[in-house]
Parts: sequence; C-alpha cells; structure tokens
Amino acid sequence: MKRPLLFTVYGMFTLLFLLFFWYYGIRGSGQDDWNESSSGLSGDIEEKYVMVTFQSDIDYWRSIMKGFEDAAQEINVSVDFRGATRYDPDEEITVLEQVIARKPAGIAVTAINPQALNGAIDKGVQAGIPIVLFDSGAPESSAYAFLGTDNVKAGAQAAREMSRLLNGSGAVAVITQPNQLNHQERTKGFQDMISKAFPNIRIVEVADGKGDLEASAQAAKRIVKEHPEVDGFFATQANGGVGIGQAMKDLGLAGKKVIIGFDTDKGTLDLVKDGTINATLAQGTWNMGYWSLMDLFHLHHGIVQPNSRGPNGSPPVPPYTDTGITVVSRVNVEQYYAR
Amino acid sequence: MKRPLLFTVYGMFTLLFLLFFWYYGIRGSGQDDWNESSSGLSGDIEEKYVMVTFQSDIDYWRSIMKGFEDAAQEINVSVDFRGATRYDPDEEITVLEQVIARKPAGIAVTAINPQALNGAIDKGVQAGIPIVLFDSGAPESSAYAFLGTDNVKAGAQAAREMSRLLNGSGAVAVITQPNQLNHQERTKGFQDMISKAFPNIRIVEVADGKGDLEASAQAAKRIVKEHPEVDGFFATQANGGVGIGQAMKDLGLAGKKVIIGFDTDKGTLDLVKDGTINATLAQGTWNMGYWSLMDLFHLHHGIVQPNSRGPNGSPPVPPYTDTGITVVSRVNVEQYYAR
Repeated sequence: MKRPLLFTVYGMFTLLFLLFFWYYGIRGSGQDDWNESSSGLSGDIEEKYVMVTFQSDIDYWRSIMKGFEDAAQEINVSVDFRGATRYDPDEEITVLEQVIARKPAGIAVTAINPQALNGAIDKGVQAGIPIVLFDSGAPESSAYAFLGTDNVKAGAQAAREMSRLLNGSGAVAVITQPNQLNHQERTKGFQDMISKAFPNIRIVEVADGKGDLEASAQAAKRIVKEHPEVDGFFATQANGGVGIGQAMKDLGLAGKKVIIGFDTDKGTLDLVKDGTINATLAQGTWNMGYWSLMDLFHLHHGIVQPNSRGPNGSPPVPPYTDTGITVVSRVNVEQYYAR
Repeated sequence: MKRPLLFTVYGMFTLLFLLFFWYYGIRGSGQDDWNESSSGLSGDIEEKYVMVTFQSDIDYWRSIMKGFEDAAQEINVSVDFRGATRYDPDEEITVLEQVIARKPAGIAVTAINPQALNGAIDKGVQAGIPIVLFDSGAPESSAYAFLGTDNVKAGAQAAREMSRLLNGSGAVAVITQPNQLNHQERTKGFQDMISKAFPNIRIVEVADGKGDLEASAQAAKRIVKEHPEVDGFFATQANGGVGIGQAMKDLGLAGKKVIIGFDTDKGTLDLVKDGTINATLAQGTWNMGYWSLMDLFHLHHGIVQPNSRGPNGSPPVPPYTDTGITVVSRVNVEQYYAR
C-alpha cells in the first residue's frame, strides 16, 4: 500500500497545482498587458513618465504634480519630476534634453516660452517619445497635445463674476501684463464679455501692472485718483490682485472696491479670507497633471484614434484639453490652502 | 527511504502550491476593484454607460460608437446605444428621459440643437447621473463637459490646405449653411486664416448651399459663371462638397478646380478617390466616443479635480476637449472606408 499512496498523493497535488496554475494563469494574464479586455487600464511599474517644469520650486506646480501622481497610481505606472530651478530657457532646454536621453515612456512639459523648447520637443517626438504640453504651450512644436486654461474663457468668467458683484452696473479697471499672450487673452475675454453682455459696466482703463506687486499697487492708486468713480478691479495675474488689495488697504478702501484676482497663492488667499479680494480664479491644475498622464499613457500604448499618425498630422489624442476655471471666494477659500 | 521520500515530495508540492497561490493571489487582488492602487483603471461589467443620438442610423455615429465601445472594453464596463430614429427634438428628449429613468452609470449625448435637451439634461444631472455632450453641445445645460471639433480651427486648417494646394495664391469661394453655428465657425476660421496668413488668396464669395447637394451644385455653377477666375471651393458640410464635385463634373472642370470638403461619408470619399475632391476634413469621431466614456467613468467613480462640485461651478473633469481634425486626401482615403 505504500507505493499506491505515494502515487495518489503525488497525483492529487499535481492536479491541484495545475488547476491553480491554470486558474490564476488565466485571471492574471494580461495584468501587465493592458490590451486584454478584462484587466482594466494598467501599465507597468517600470514604465516611467516624467514631468518637466521651470522655476521648479514654486507652489503653483504642486497640484499639477498631485494630479500627475494620482493618475500614475490609478494606472499603476511610475512618475518622476525634473525641473529647471530658475526662470531660464536654456536651463529648461538642458533639463528636457537630459530627460529625453533617458527615453522615458512619456514626458509632460510646461514651456517657459512658446518657442524656446521647440527643438528639444521635436527631437524627443522624432525619437518616438510621447510628449504633451501643459499650462504653457508651444503651438509650433510637434508635441501631441496641450492641456491648460482657456484664458479667453477665464476672462469672460471674471466679467460675469464682476457683473454679479456689482449688480450689473459700474466702472471697472483691468490691471494686466500687456506683452504676455495669456494675459492679453484674459483681458480680451473680460472686455468682450463686458461689451457683449453687460452694457451698464464701463471699463475706464486697462493698465500695466508689470506682473509686479508694487507696480500694480501704484497703478491701482493712480486709477482711484484719476477715476474716483471706479467700483472694481480685475487683475489678470496673482501679484496684480495682491497689489491692488494692498493699495486699497493703504487708501482705507479695502472692502469698498470689488477686486477679482487670479490664481491661489497664499498672498491672494489671505486677502480673499479677510474680504479685501472678493474672488479669485483658480485654474484646473489637478486636471492638467491628471489628464497629461492619461494622454501620455494612451500614446505610449497606442490606444488612440484609428488612422492617426497618417501623412496629414492626424490627432492620436485630443489636441487640446481645456482644464477649467473655478471661482474662489470666502465661501470656499479654506479648501485652497490645503492643496 | 520510502517514508522520507513521500514527505519530501509532499512538502515540495505544498511549498510550490503555497508559493503560486501567494504570488497569483497578490497579483490578482483588486482585479475588480479599480480603487486599489495596483489594479489599474477598471470598473464593473454591471456598470452601464449609455450613448444617446438623434438620426440614430446615420453612418456618422459609427466611429464615435466604436470609440465608446473601445474605452468600455479597456476599463471593463458595459455600454448601450439609444437614439431617436428621426431628426426630431421631441423624440430625442423622450429617449433621453427614458435612459435617465433607468439610472445608468453615465450618459453621453449629442444635442440635436443647443437648447431642446437642456431640461432633460439638468434633471439627469440633478438626479446624480454624470452626463457629457459630444459632437453638438448644449452650452447652457448643466452637462459636465463637451467633447467635439473646434470648428474655427477646422476652418483654419481648410485654409492652410487650400493655400498648399493653390501654391499660396488664387481666388476661392466658400459654400456653407449661414444660419448654423458650427458652419458659421468653420467659415470664420477659414476667412480669418486666409486674411491673416495668405495675402494672395482672395475669397470671391461665401454662398448658401442650404446643406443640400442640389442647392450646393447650383451655387457652384453660378459662382463659376460669375467668377470664371475661381480656383477653388471650400464646403463646410458634406453635401456641399459632393454638390460642388458633381457641378464640376457637369461643367467638365473636375480636377481643374480645387475642392476641399467636410466629413467622410461615402459620397465624399468616392469623389476624393476619383480626384474630384482634393481633400476632406475628418473629425476626431473616435476621440469623441473614447474620451466621453473616460470622462463619464471618472465622474461616476469620483476620480476628479479636488475641491470640485463646490459652490461656484467647479470643473470636476475638463469642460472642453477638442477632438481634432485630420486632412483626408487620395493618399489616405482608403483607410476611411473601413471605419
């Protein structure tokens, strides 16, 4: 009976072993192969996607990086962050070229200006690396997509908020940076919406705040002097809003003039909280990071529009994603400190 | 030596068995639970997403449906297609309300006109159902997102293609539907790009083709008579392109005037193939379907921009996705029959 028992045990385990191997083999198959229909969108933890920024230590990128990380966690891939520390095109070119040389699965990059990175981006795309742009684009580069704020719409949103706060009538001023495209667009969106939808609101001046707190404060003080009837200000840039707020405090007019700012840096949020700034526009930064990674993942795995990569510049992924704008006021300002 | 051998074999298999169980158990865990970080984006096959169209049997929706299905397969959820059979707003409202009543995981809908569906959409969103719009939007509804062609950009693309085909100079005409927004935008994009970038191209007329083959053919014949110097036509709509092509054949001018059409119905593709139409613009239809499902999935599972759904209409997902345009010519026309 010794021999038969041995064979029975042997046979039983072999059978069980094969059964489990077969069962888990089937369920587990395609786990690293996203193309199997039942496994979900999932990459490989060895698959690395890199985000490239400039002025890499500013707070503004944080929520974008969080979105990039959150997406990576959902689809089981790795991320890395590289950035030029200074506001220096040459430094960002160098960083981007170093990243390209390591052949990652994809690169999301924000362009320090619309031209500087074109050569590096084109080289990367030609080497077969998916590259998308977020926040600041490079329209003439061969990057596959741009994900960022629609600045014309953001300006229009500011105009609607201004009208709501002024009950539809009053005199307003804009403080902007006239030589930068995104600020030109925000100003134009604001002006167009006012002239189209709010006939009782008059724009008394569009002034240059130079992207600087002090210059914006001085412009605001001058405008109040020259146009004492002014009821509200729209700043297309964070320092502008803080500068106007400071000016109104200095003049004893804090809370008496409507101020709409831009972005959610601590200086702006503090003035929203104390009532000096009535509202500020938060960009869809998490969306920029999250959907940049999604685009790169789809490009890397070829899950794209059929017939794309044809001879006529077809779009494998959506060429533009508007990441949205949220109005932040006293009601919801606390949430924005946490980001 | 019999007893020790038995134990060795027994022990070896138990060990192997446990090892495999442990290994595949870990790899397989969270397979059906998308929220586990290592499992990838995956839903439940019980989770149903519905696409709602009008004129549901036209070919145009096919590639959009394919994109919707492909996305569902990637993330392991189910889809269903419902549509009004006619071009009838009331019928589409009824279909949409029936779909909403069944509380699906999400609905992608194309609006027969910009207003008709607003009430039904708002009711669905209030009932907690994620709804996005594709191809034709309803900007004043509470739908979370719109995914479709940027028609101004499409017109600009047509202008660049026209300039390329005419070597940068000539006289051209546009045949459009002047009372429909998407066609106004395509015409404007074309005009603006010509006047901005191509000073040697002159637009002799913008004519009304009424979205009709016969009317467009007649307009094209009249234009050739009144402006014999005309070198090219841009039709902002499929029937327009086919009508112009037919007119040029009737006049013995096929292949002698440049024609740029729109969309990829069989009539247009046949004329591209035989050289009568030089190029046609294909919309990013697969992108519309694929990324609509992605948006709905993310809304259903709450994988969205933090602090969204706040008091100020924050964007949980990107509010607008430009699904792109591809130029189709003789070189790549064959691929489009297959779709």
